[in-house]
Amino acid sequence: MERVALRTAAVTRGAARLLAALGHAVLREVPLADGRRADLVCLGARGEITIVEVKSCARDFLADNKWEEYRAWCDRLYFAVDHDFPQGLIPADAGLIVADPWGGALLREALEHRLAPARRRAVLLRFARLAARRAEAAADPDGAADTLSPD
Amino acid sequence: MERVALRTAAVTRGAARLLAALGHAVLREVPLADGRRADLVCLGARGEITIVEVKSCARDFLADNKWEEYRAWCDRLYFAVDHDFPQGLIPADAGLIVADPWGGALLREALEHRLAPARRRAVLLRFARLAARRAEAAADPDGAADTLSPD
Repeated sequence: MERVALRTAAVTRGAARLLAALGHAVLREVPLADGRRADLVCLGARGEITIVEVKSCARDFLADNKWEEYRAWCDRLYFAVDHDFPQGLIPADAGLIVADPWGGALLREALEHRLAPARRRAVLLRFARLAARRAEAAADPDGAADTLSPD
Repeated sequence: MERVALRTAAVTRGAARLLAALGHAVLREVPLADGRRADLVCLGARGEITIVEVKSCARDFLADNKWEEYRAWCDRLYFAVDHDFPQGLIPADAGLIVADPWGGALLREALEHRLAPARRRAVLLRFARLAARRAEAAADPDGAADTLSPD
């Protein structure tokens, strides 16, 4: 794996562990209905939906000029970066997580922008079906569940 | 594995493959809020919830005199059995699936009894969180996600 991919994988794992420790059920690489792919979508005990976008470096962040579109699919948006990332780049109303392969720290809470009920239901349904298909693919690798597309 | 457990596992796998082929996302051994455990909970593309109860033999079916309680958690209830099961035992308003380890056949559709919206949302949330935790446990076995309880 190249260096950037390794760094992304490390931050992703640490951020996923942090969100799980905070009580969220976490799913990686979730295709959204608009064609974008969220690095982590997290589902809280009361149905709250959090997206975490992993940025491996400043260039990675600056190249993604459409990150605001993730807000349409969650109640809270966080960026997860490693210790070397220039944190001043992250917009003040997005949450900030600093992570390494073993875990993460929540440095700043995200502002809440609650989803409308119909949108929340659509995201939850997509999340649930994708998660179950991945779990079932692990339980029965030869079965029909190896179609991992969300719908 | 003992004989009954082997037969149950075979019917479960075949039924899971059938439901997946019919477009459902399938999750095994799902604890429900009332303390019961459903053998398969299946989530359709429009959010419809199906429970499949696997019965290894007539004695297994007759010993479960509370199976009607599963209706409280789904829109449709099916029983899945193997070819040797006496099908006349299965009540007429429940669906009937005959399965072997490689797949299954839908012999009779279940009557629909649609969940109330609040109950549907609760089942969907529980399903989604459990499924994601299982998927994440496969993605990061050493992480915090090995707590597989639904909430």
